[in-house]
Amino acid sequence: ASNPGQFENDSDALWQRGHVPETVVSYGRVGINTDAPDEALVVCGNVKVMGTVMHPSDSRAKQNIQEVDTTEQLRRIAQMRLVEYDYKPEFASVMGINNTHETGIIAQEVKELLPTAVKEVGDITCENGEKVDNFLMVDKDQIFMENVGAVKQLCKLTNNLEIRIEELEVWNRKLAKLKRISSLKSTVNEKSTF
Amino acid sequence: ASNPGQFENDSDALWQRGHVPETVVSYGRVGINTDAPDEALVVCGNVKVMGTVMHPSDSRAKQNIQEVDTTEQLRRIAQMRLVEYDYKPEFASVMGINNTHETGIIAQEVKELLPTAVKEVGDITCENGEKVDNFLMVDKDQIFMENVGAVKQLCKLTNNLEIRIEELEVWNRKLAKLKRISSLKSTVNEKSTF
Amino acid sequence: ASNPGQFENDSDALWQRGHVPETVVSYGRVGINTDAPDEALVVCGNVKVMGTVMHPSDSRAKQNIQEVDTTEQLRRIAQMRLVEYDYKPEFASVMGINNTHETGIIAQEVKELLPTAVKEVGDITCENGEKVDNFLMVDKDQIFMENVGAVKQLCKLTNNLEIRIEELEVWNRKLAKLKRISSLKSTVNEKSTF
Repeated sequence: ASNPGQFENDSDALWQRGHVPETVVSYGRVGINTDAPDEALVVCGNVKVMGTVMHPSDSRAKQNIQEVDTTEQLRRIAQMRLVEYDYKPEFASVMGINNTHETGIIAQEVKELLPTAVKEVGDITCENGEKVDNFLMVDKDQIFMENVGAVKQLCKLTNNLEIRIEELEVWNRKLAKLKRISSLKSTVNEKSTF
Repeated sequence: ASNPGQFENDSDALWQRGHVPETVVSYGRVGINTDAPDEALVVCGNVKVMGTVMHPSDSRAKQNIQEVDTTEQLRRIAQMRLVEYDYKPEFASVMGINNTHETGIIAQEVKELLPTAVKEVGDITCENGEKVDNFLMVDKDQIFMENVGAVKQLCKLTNNLEIRIEELEVWNRKLAKLKRISSLKSTVNEKSTF
Repeated sequence: ASNPGQFENDSDALWQRGHVPETVVSYGRVGINTDAPDEALVVCGNVKVMGTVMHPSDSRAKQNIQEVDTTEQLRRIAQMRLVEYDYKPEFASVMGINNTHETGIIAQEVKELLPTAVKEVGDITCENGEKVDNFLMVDKDQIFMENVGAVKQLCKLTNNLEIRIEELEVWNRKLAKLKRISSLKSTVNEKSTF
């Protein structure tokens, strides 16, 4: 760090002070427990966030906005297979995964139903040297958003079923009344004939 | 960095060793691909987390705990519009967004239904110099938690509908029986009268 | 840091250049606004992610894959209590939480229903010196994934209810027809007897 000629190797080039006070900034990609981060931030291990995680959602950043078909969303959720699994130990140890048993989905299956939620992230090498090429990762938020649409659709279906049940109930009440009148008549009838 | 007297401006001031071994620590705000992070961590780009993301949820950190009205949660989910959209390229390029097509919600609409899930994060400047003031971001977890409540409510509604259907089925079986008896009587009746 | 011979203990030891260009890398644990990170990344405060958050989900990293029982998932979601609460100020201030009012679940209750979603993270000290031992954190994604299963199950239940309603409707139409014939007969009957 004392040699100005080696400044490009210095930590000041790795992290800089930001534009505003009390900020540290890096341009490029940051890896925690990985030396080849391929996205802005790659964490091999768990993350604890004490506050909230926010995403951009302002209409002014978006275009071609159109409502989605919740019927399709419910259909996709109904078809999505939910599985329990264990991460293979040779994969888990490299990725810093310690909760090896999990409930979730399989990227290969999600790709068929909801391709936008799945991303190929290149090759991954497990601890035993085994290579997984074109490893698939999933944006769970896309699945959970799909699930919101499925619930919207189920809500409509349930409301429709309730209307049909109400009609059946009204019908049955009418039938019951007629039955009573009819029985009454039959009784009268029976009395008069026998 | 070459002047020891300016050590406080050095990278050691940006990141320090933590209290426990093998830890690096920063106080303030950290930005990746942004020089003006306005929260503890701001990432322009994607994040890959190999392990799990955890949030505090211990009852001992909470007060004024009261059960929410799932009827209201279902009502809000039913009203929440789900849309497909493209991020405007001049916004996406600044924010490190490469999945420009997405399914989601519009912060301005969520604000009406679930204001606590939306946060104003100040002004944002797009690549073309266009400024978006009071940009809105969303805490999707709040929406997904709302969706859990909606499912709880739908489960209650579905159970109620099933009870009403069972009653109708019992009724219909009784009616069918009466019908048979009645037809029998009518037959007897008819025979005796004609 | 003032001794060039100890350069390897310097900040370059905190963060290093990665394997690929434009990357910064840390091995161990990174804390933002905490000096004792106990996971790969611990953030006291909020996180803003402009892109997407991805998780591993490739079938090739998994073993012992078996489909989950969505009946059980719906049962667990139906039993999960959703609450509103305020974070205690002495906890919120240490953890960088500024949205103190939230809707969510209570880790102690989730632990009974879905133990894999809850993790003990050691002791936490609040601003007033109060210590919370064995603090519980929750992996919300596990709950939201459970909610996807609950929706799958509700979809099945709703489809079954619809089939039963259809049968009732067919029945009622038949009964209505019979009724009309029967009334007709009764009318004939009545005419002939009176």
